[in-house]
Amino acid sequence: MSTIIFKQKPRIIGWYSVAGKKESQGPLRETFSRIVTDEYFGEKTHEMAERKFFVTAIQGAIQSAGVQPDIVFAGDLLNQIVSSSFAMRDIGLPYVGIYGACSTMALSIINAATYVDAGLVQTTVAAAGSHFATAERQYRTPLEFGNQRPPTSQWTVTGAGATVLSSAKTSSIGVTCATIGRVVDYGIKDVNNMGACMAPAAADTLERHFKNTNTQPGDYDAIFSGDLGQIGEEALRDLMKEKGYPLGENYYDCGKLIYYGEQKVDMGGSGCGCSAVTLNGFILDKFQQGEYHKVLFMATGALLSPTTCFQGESIPGIANAVVIEEVTE
Amino acid sequence: MSTIIFKQKPRIIGWYSVAGKKESQGPLRETFSRIVTDEYFGEKTHEMAERKFFVTAIQGAIQSAGVQPDIVFAGDLLNQIVSSSFAMRDIGLPYVGIYGACSTMALSIINAATYVDAGLVQTTVAAAGSHFATAERQYRTPLEFGNQRPPTSQWTVTGAGATVLSSAKTSSIGVTCATIGRVVDYGIKDVNNMGACMAPAAADTLERHFKNTNTQPGDYDAIFSGDLGQIGEEALRDLMKEKGYPLGENYYDCGKLIYYGEQKVDMGGSGCGCSAVTLNGFILDKFQQGEYHKVLFMATGALLSPTTCFQGESIPGIANAVVIEEVTE
Repeated sequence: MSTIIFKQKPRIIGWYSVAGKKESQGPLRETFSRIVTDEYFGEKTHEMAERKFFVTAIQGAIQSAGVQPDIVFAGDLLNQIVSSSFAMRDIGLPYVGIYGACSTMALSIINAATYVDAGLVQTTVAAAGSHFATAERQYRTPLEFGNQRPPTSQWTVTGAGATVLSSAKTSSIGVTCATIGRVVDYGIKDVNNMGACMAPAAADTLERHFKNTNTQPGDYDAIFSGDLGQIGEEALRDLMKEKGYPLGENYYDCGKLIYYGEQKVDMGGSGCGCSAVTLNGFILDKFQQGEYHKVLFMATGALLSPTTCFQGESIPGIANAVVIEEVTE
Repeated sequence: MSTIIFKQKPRIIGWYSVAGKKESQGPLRETFSRIVTDEYFGEKTHEMAERKFFVTAIQGAIQSAGVQPDIVFAGDLLNQIVSSSFAMRDIGLPYVGIYGACSTMALSIINAATYVDAGLVQTTVAAAGSHFATAERQYRTPLEFGNQRPPTSQWTVTGAGATVLSSAKTSSIGVTCATIGRVVDYGIKDVNNMGACMAPAAADTLERHFKNTNTQPGDYDAIFSGDLGQIGEEALRDLMKEKGYPLGENYYDCGKLIYYGEQKVDMGGSGCGCSAVTLNGFILDKFQQGEYHKVLFMATGALLSPTTCFQGESIPGIANAVVIEEVTE
């Protein structure tokens, strides 16, 4: 059984998002806990800035929860997930490094919830983030190169988000179940078309989730994918229709929500930070405001590396889904 | 509390190790499940070979357990942990990517045990691996460059190991508790001296583990560190003496166990595969033979990336420890 049901329904007791300048010019600007317009965040390099976004998000979430956590689960896109690891030098707590590419926010929440559900610890933090400049440099070309972006490309979100989970029943927002992703590869090799690489994995996870939980897309107030972008979203809608679970108007992609079309982001936002700042702002705020009662949050990842692309490999995808809902008991 | 106590004591019901040629010439040769002397494992690139070591270890462990697992937890040293992710294309099971650098074998076992302990799933697999040629290429220089190795360097183990954990009480080898690592950085910047980078993290984890569990080094049949090598082992012994927990003759380092001195490996073995093949062979075999009843298995990792080194950063370390012991009920 690939869907896990959390017996204790770990509660979300705090969250925080910190986003960059471009994100602050998009539709979600009011929902971020903090905006940092300096792409260097006062640091010498973009890599150090990414790290500072992480530290800011984790510390902000801990402060909003008001409880000292036992373990932090975090990951990012940089090689050897150094943004998370170096951020944890400053945080000083036990740390589990998670990697699910852009699905990391969902994957870290699933792991953070599992430790709480097992009764092994009381409080955990899940975090993920990304930075436009570091991702371009590592996966494509440094910004100074001035490369032209193909129309299928997506814009890596600069920002980080963190969620605090707890065994204490002090919040009515609970994590109730999760479907862990399988690696799915449809043979796509275009490094500038991540949406197409990830959509098949998203469809695989959604189908298993609906089957295992005996639910339909309409049973959720909203279903979010992480960063499929326009092409990926359309592909997912097609695939889900074929599978007998057509997605309706309650389905959104964080990559499409985060920017306006006129911001020149091609197919939309991407990166671990995309779903991380959308969850830890827009989505969780709506629970607090009573607008959402049950949400399926699914983040998707493309499991490539520059080396695998250079060696002619196709790009496998993965998608991790977690149900966040209002719980009463 | 940074040490977690597993209530259900998840059982180790299967394991498998596959190691390369150099490893097959070392003292542990008889303990590997399989030896592959071709460094390409019949593939076109070393990266594809590393992946095949992974698939072989995971499939071998599943076969030895005789049970289909629910989730696989795996990680490796290559950028974007592509060896694990691409291997999971072939395995087809739900997959959680874990990154703890060379501490990944311990970290993946801790996560695999937690999911079983929580009662969320019945059977999980933990896996880790590495390859000498891919690690040299990524972290240092490609082998064709013919770089001279400094005397403090270590030799990345070619091999992979996998462990199957279960809620079924069909084995008497249980995972009883674990201490999750914190990121510790003593400011060392020498990319050719991993032992010195990791020893402070190892000491931090060991001290917390002994304090939290109210045990002493002598309470274990054996204590293993992952790949500190000669310098790191000496540093750890010094640090633990200072902390009031001197390590005795029951302490071993997998990096020192795996090769003979005359194999020209400088300070010893390293890489995720080092502790992975030692655990899933030598150590677990000794449980089966009744020689070990309680072991503290601690794998250590250096959380660097080539980019952080180029940017002048120091190298943070982490160490994750897990207790494996004979359980009766």
